Amino acid sequence: MSNLQELDTYFTENRETHLEELKEFLRIPSISALSEHKADMQKAADWLKDSLTTAGIEKVEVLPTKGHPVVYGEWMHAKGKPTILFYGHYDVQPVDPLNLWETEPFDPQIRENKLFARGASDDKGQVFMHIKAVEAWMKTTGSLPVNMKFIIEGEEEIGSPSLEAFIEENKEKLASDIIVISDTGMQAKGKPAVCYGLRGLAGVQIDVKGAKGDLHSGLYGGSVQNAIHALVQVLDSFRAENGKILVDGFYDSVLEATEEEKEAYKALNVDEEAIKKELQVPALFGEEGYSHLERTWTRPTLEINGVFGGFSGEGIKTVLPNEAGAKITCRLVPNQEPDEIVQLLKAHIDKNTLPGVTISVTEFDKGKPFLTPFDHPAIQAAGASYEKVYNVPTAYIRGGGSIPIVAAFDDILQVPVILMGFGLAEENFHAPNEHFHLENFDQGLRVIGDYYESIAGFKPDELKK
Amino acid sequence: MSNLQELDTYFTENRETHLEELKEFLRIPSISALSEHKADMQKAADWLKDSLTTAGIEKVEVLPTKGHPVVYGEWMHAKGKPTILFYGHYDVQPVDPLNLWETEPFDPQIRENKLFARGASDDKGQVFMHIKAVEAWMKTTGSLPVNMKFIIEGEEEIGSPSLEAFIEENKEKLASDIIVISDTGMQAKGKPAVCYGLRGLAGVQIDVKGAKGDLHSGLYGGSVQNAIHALVQVLDSFRAENGKILVDGFYDSVLEATEEEKEAYKALNVDEEAIKKELQVPALFGEEGYSHLERTWTRPTLEINGVFGGFSGEGIKTVLPNEAGAKITCRLVPNQEPDEIVQLLKAHIDKNTLPGVTISVTEFDKGKPFLTPFDHPAIQAAGASYEKVYNVPTAYIRGGGSIPIVAAFDDILQVPVILMGFGLAEENFHAPNEHFHLENFDQGLRVIGDYYESIAGFKPDELKK
Repeated sequence: MSNLQELDTYFTENRETHLEELKEFLRIPSISALSEHKADMQKAADWLKDSLTTAGIEKVEVLPTKGHPVVYGEWMHAKGKPTILFYGHYDVQPVDPLNLWETEPFDPQIRENKLFARGASDDKGQVFMHIKAVEAWMKTTGSLPVNMKFIIEGEEEIGSPSLEAFIEENKEKLASDIIVISDTGMQAKGKPAVCYGLRGLAGVQIDVKGAKGDLHSGLYGGSVQNAIHALVQVLDSFRAENGKILVDGFYDSVLEATEEEKEAYKALNVDEEAIKKELQVPALFGEEGYSHLERTWTRPTLEINGVFGGFSGEGIKTVLPNEAGAKITCRLVPNQEPDEIVQLLKAHIDKNTLPGVTISVTEFDKGKPFLTPFDHPAIQAAGASYEKVYNVPTAYIRGGGSIPIVAAFDDILQVPVILMGFGLAEENFHAPNEHFHLENFDQGLRVIGDYYESIAGFKPDELKK
Repeated sequence: MSNLQELDTYFTENRETHLEELKEFLRIPSISALSEHKADMQKAADWLKDSLTTAGIEKVEVLPTKGHPVVYGEWMHAKGKPTILFYGHYDVQPVDPLNLWETEPFDPQIRENKLFARGASDDKGQVFMHIKAVEAWMKTTGSLPVNMKFIIEGEEEIGSPSLEAFIEENKEKLASDIIVISDTGMQAKGKPAVCYGLRGLAGVQIDVKGAKGDLHSGLYGGSVQNAIHALVQVLDSFRAENGKILVDGFYDSVLEATEEEKEAYKALNVDEEAIKKELQVPALFGEEGYSHLERTWTRPTLEINGVFGGFSGEGIKTVLPNEAGAKITCRLVPNQEPDEIVQLLKAHIDKNTLPGVTISVTEFDKGKPFLTPFDHPAIQAAGASYEKVYNVPTAYIRGGGSIPIVAAFDDILQVPVILMGFGLAEENFHAPNEHFHLENFDQGLRVIGDYYESIAGFKPDELKK
């Protein structure tokens, strides 16, 4: 007998309180990439500890790592039932350029039933929903239908440098039958999706150094290498005008999507014209011969994320700059190996370094790509819970982003990972004016609550990979 | 009968006072490019007014322009003698990157007989020397041997946008027989030079705009044009790997240096190995087939002065940036026309704009290149004054930098321009730790004082162009 009706009533009655609590969480500027926010990371972890405990989760701990802490908690009283390990992250992306935010990134505001704040959608809002789903079960029935473990980290946005070791060291503690993650998007507004694949990540920072200092372009211009010229030469050499990456060997291990997958993507009827309009771009741009979904789900990329050097203030400065740099990340697809890709990038940079400068390369943290069969029962059950609440068919999709730790969970714990996302592509994750559609907050709470009950219907053995 | 002995005594006795006064001038952060320094520009102009008046210059005025004010003054009591118009500038370059300065740019400090401060060499220090030369003549003899006019502007570092109109409107006021400018360098330490040619300047800012905002590189990477990729494509297209500028028509009107000039440059025995060492570069880099002096004096350039876009903070941010930009300036040589060059740049940018973005181009202020015969008597007299004080032969050289207004003086007032510089290439104009060698301050005061007397030996007619 389903508990969905009771959960629904509970969520409706407590909506205002829940939103106020979420805003409190979003006010903590837990930007993992910036060292000045170290104290905020601890604050966000402590906030989660209190929130999980209040919801009814037991043995909640804030565990130190070499980087930002991990929050762990469990409820293990559903004898004989499967154990769900929920993974999420409490860290958020940097917020610059700050001047493009309509309201402050850490002052959450609701406008038109959307909650605006850094982390509203990625991933604090979605983490919060799982805590409230637990709370709803505990308040309405006094227990959970399944065993639950929570692991919430603070370094996802910087590539989870500490978590893999943490999982390795805590295999027993984290033992479970399935892993649920809510950090991906739905197919579109009103169109739920379960995600069965993600891209990986590898990247480097390139620093070009020329003369001992900036030079006067009148005195030396024409006779000394300009660090920015040398930089753009390297950067431009990465990609052909048609969008193909020119790094030797870059595509060698790419697993092409199957014809079945391509057909399924086509059936999703993505409106590329609507995307152009939404993004306000004159044209989409990418590798020839691939659709938008194929490009973003099944093809690797090389993006320049930032470039800097010389004078960028108001007006003109006739300087011959001696330093310049760029940040580059690649989205990887099965079966590309991040370490191998970084080696290819380094070789490419070496080959394209102009005379008169030296280039140093710093590696960023990496993440493997991930793929799981879409007919696994725990995935199908997730789809069914969405359908029950949203009343439309669920799409089985891949994601173009990276949750670097998914592959590690997969590798180390050897249990299937289910990606149940409630975000929408237009919600500006990683960009100014990030927001979360509250209809997905509301419906998502019910989907999650129902899914716990659904999983309780399986014997643990039936969920094996 | 020469007054050099008396001047020498005066400069020696007043050295400390003069240096204290110069430091006061250098403490005013008169950065013309940055609007927040508007009040400092007025302050620097007012400081000059007082300094000129104290020296004995009459009718000193601070004259408003559309931009920063011009300081004017004159002393016209040398009946029948030639009139020298002295031109200089009181504005300075921006100071970033500030962290590379050993001491604050606007807190002048003397170390090892060098005066460190923004503007010490370019051009406040050199302007100050002319004022002190006038003062020395007035204090030692009660008059000047020639008629003098001073025009000191505050917009040289931003391309002198107001001065050309000012000269046009004040032709009568500025009527003179020769124009003397001290804003160039000597050939090397202990090797004086008179400069007979300068490069011109033209430049643009390029702004690339893609999607309506920054995007998540996971969601859109591979399918939406990255503004930085589009930018580096344009920037890299400007120049071949061998240093040649690839903008169509760029070299069409270049006046090649004569064989005589090339021979004279060769005779200057520039040590290119020493330059490499001084600048700490693994190699010099420029157009094939040209020496360092030919590259910097007689060949046009295209330099990227700054580049910006995306994330440049600490760590990694997997953003697909929607905006990026760069600042570009070209050094021009006779007979390139700045307006024409900007048109060529624009056409080139248009041709190299990738799909999925729009590019806007903003023109910077321009300056024409300049060349004058090196055997003119006022140039030879300048060389002779240097030789008298420095006791070594004077070199007749060109400069690779631009004083955009020189061509305008030449055009409008139709009198020869003499460039008597006291700076040294290694003095970091436009870069951190700008400084001025005080031996050239000391000897330069004497050269200038002597030159006024030398010019007094000519009839005005003998100085005609």
